[in-house]
Amino acid sequence: MDKIILGIDPGTNFMGYALIHVKKTDVSIITLGIIDLEKYSDHYLKLQKIFKRVLSLVDEFHPDEMALEAPFFGKNVQSMLKLGRAQGVAMAAGLSRDLPITEYAPRKVKMAITGAGTATKEQVAAMLLKLLNVNELPNLLDATDALAVALCHYYQISGPLNNIAKGSNSWKDFISKNPNRIS
Amino acid sequence: MDKIILGIDPGTNFMGYALIHVKKTDVSIITLGIIDLEKYSDHYLKLQKIFKRVLSLVDEFHPDEMALEAPFFGKNVQSMLKLGRAQGVAMAAGLSRDLPITEYAPRKVKMAITGAGTATKEQVAAMLLKLLNVNELPNLLDATDALAVALCHYYQISGPLNNIAKGSNSWKDFISKNPNRIS
Repeated sequence: MDKIILGIDPGTNFMGYALIHVKKTDVSIITLGIIDLEKYSDHYLKLQKIFKRVLSLVDEFHPDEMALEAPFFGKNVQSMLKLGRAQGVAMAAGLSRDLPITEYAPRKVKMAITGAGTATKEQVAAMLLKLLNVNELPNLLDATDALAVALCHYYQISGPLNNIAKGSNSWKDFISKNPNRIS
Repeated sequence: MDKIILGIDPGTNFMGYALIHVKKTDVSIITLGIIDLEKYSDHYLKLQKIFKRVLSLVDEFHPDEMALEAPFFGKNVQSMLKLGRAQGVAMAAGLSRDLPITEYAPRKVKMAITGAGTATKEQVAAMLLKLLNVNELPNLLDATDALAVALCHYYQISGPLNNIAKGSNSWKDFISKNPNRIS
């Protein structure tokens, strides 16, 4: 496998993104970050920023696939409409360049990374450090969520054997060895 | 005033669109139609068709503004998420070309066109014939809804004096003169 995967965690206040490069079974982080939308009061400006930023990531890094963390349930119809719009403009950026899109429910992402669907964002972030063999990640939980969904998608398309979290390096194994890393 | 307005009625099965040209107080239809999404079973393909078709309308006719019919309430969170995505990709097409977007609730559109917020789609279509001085419109209610929201936006930006439906040519006046036109 030689693929670049764009992971997106779309929200209406922050949107997390991460690009990973998978070469054979080696996964490296190309970039990750957040699009801060809180500073824009105008709803359309927020949506425009999401679209243009995601499009610029697509055009700069040429990902092969796009993976979205997408909750299917929400508090109320208003918040789901807003979330749908944020997802829609992010998807439009990928679809405009014919990127295949795959969605994963938050629970599925947590399960793929940590082995537990109920893991906290902090637990997911700690497991990502281990899986990607890096010392630190930016302290931006929306960005690490985007990284998690990108990695989840890699596990999904590469088959269960490559899912490290399901193997001996499971989350349970990790916490037993790293009790101090659990917040 | 010399403006081209793109009206959009976004839905997940059909998306209506209409382009009107307003020159001073003269309003003419440039084009209108629907994007049939029912034939695509893939959710992302539907969203991609919406984005690419709306973008092609924007790039072909260069509208100055975009008006959307946008319900703010729905049956459930699932349908609102889907609707939000459809709205989002349509908006992304406009936002990618820096078009200002204005939304109108369905009731507001009906009120602007017919003087009654509870008018049926057929009543809106019949009133549009009169307001635009045309003999017929395609029998596509989603397209006439898009035409209605484009015209509603023209009334909104041109001030209340230009709102024919609020003047002597009101819906009540229209139905009293055209009782056979009401379905």
